[in-house]
Amino acid sequence: MSKDQMATKIKIAEAAVELFTCQGYQGTSVRQIAKKAGVNLALVSYHFGGKKGLLEELVSSFYEGYIRKIEVVYHTSADQPEKERLLEVIESVLNYQLRQPHLSRFVHREMTLDSTLVREVMTTYLAKEKYYYDSIFEKGMKQKEFHKQPVMLLTLQLRNLIIMPFLHPLYISEVFYTAPHDPLFVTSYMSFIHKWLEQSVCVPQRKGSLLSAVQNPLFATIQEKWNG
Amino acid sequence: MSKDQMATKIKIAEAAVELFTCQGYQGTSVRQIAKKAGVNLALVSYHFGGKKGLLEELVSSFYEGYIRKIEVVYHTSADQPEKERLLEVIESVLNYQLRQPHLSRFVHREMTLDSTLVREVMTTYLAKEKYYYDSIFEKGMKQKEFHKQPVMLLTLQLRNLIIMPFLHPLYISEVFYTAPHDPLFVTSYMSFIHKWLEQSVCVPQRKGSLLSAVQNPLFATIQEKWNG
Repeated sequence: MSKDQMATKIKIAEAAVELFTCQGYQGTSVRQIAKKAGVNLALVSYHFGGKKGLLEELVSSFYEGYIRKIEVVYHTSADQPEKERLLEVIESVLNYQLRQPHLSRFVHREMTLDSTLVREVMTTYLAKEKYYYDSIFEKGMKQKEFHKQPVMLLTLQLRNLIIMPFLHPLYISEVFYTAPHDPLFVTSYMSFIHKWLEQSVCVPQRKGSLLSAVQNPLFATIQEKWNG
Repeated sequence: MSKDQMATKIKIAEAAVELFTCQGYQGTSVRQIAKKAGVNLALVSYHFGGKKGLLEELVSSFYEGYIRKIEVVYHTSADQPEKERLLEVIESVLNYQLRQPHLSRFVHREMTLDSTLVREVMTTYLAKEKYYYDSIFEKGMKQKEFHKQPVMLLTLQLRNLIIMPFLHPLYISEVFYTAPHDPLFVTSYMSFIHKWLEQSVCVPQRKGSLLSAVQNPLFATIQEKWNG
């Protein structure tokens, strides 16, 4: 594909994301997409084979990149503690979505429908995503770095935390005072996730935090002795 | 309103929910709604003042009922432990959504858009929902029933767990093997939430679980002595 053709393809994709997001997929016509992109109607069919093909390519290219981000961290960080791996995966996927917030939100919304496309995405991409998260949690538990608890529950919570700011940015910003459009979003949200891991996932490492979690006078006495 | 008029109003509302869910709000016309409901076009305007009014009434009646469920439990359970109150609130809201899964999904999806209606819902209903969850978590921490941790994080996770099965039923069923349409959904999902509360929210109460959380040889020795 020539440079010009690629530029046209990108223009069409961007116009489609904007229109789908505002008017919904059903409420948008190929004519409107071509008009917004400033290209001839025939070029939409040429590049994407029509509206359905455009939707499929948007969704699958989003998930290709998304899973790639997880895979890269997963395979390059295998010798690190599982908590660090998890933090790296999360930060990478948050940044990936942050670079394309409209597409991210559109895809996550689309995933709440029942359709053949959604079922395909489930069995290819979302099952892979689940596999990586499950593996990290399982390994962390095996190595006693994480508390024993249902992996399913942790993976579900992790995934919710990762997609929520992009699926419901307004909710997050009006009710939780942080949102993807804030310049410090990733930093503040990561500290949020860090607390979740420390509190709910990891076995406490330091003496202080280990003992403070235990509400028992006998332990308080031991702590006093240890701390001199 | 007469019984007949009420029946007509309900028929229109049900037709709209079905069409909005399948085709999106933007992709649905008043004409289609009237046709599906089997009523005269003019009756949609008469009962709801048009498509926008219909959407507003659907969303606000959903949230009126939703918040009412939370409020009732909140006010009648004030003397119970906070964990029990939370479980009761959650079960009540899950059952509420279960009775109208299409409307629930549609409303939760609609909340992912930026619109004046969404902003209004945020400041009226979702702020109230947050207030009740926050209050229970804060009281639980004050009474040392819950671990000290950011209330915001707990409320966000709780809300995700409550709406997720209805917003993403396909994801939940394909990847997590439970979904609102399973006859045992509430029972199995509640046991899931129960584990989350035990593991991540509550301070351990029983000796056994208290000690098993502590990965330290000294504590293991003490445990052995205690257990004889």
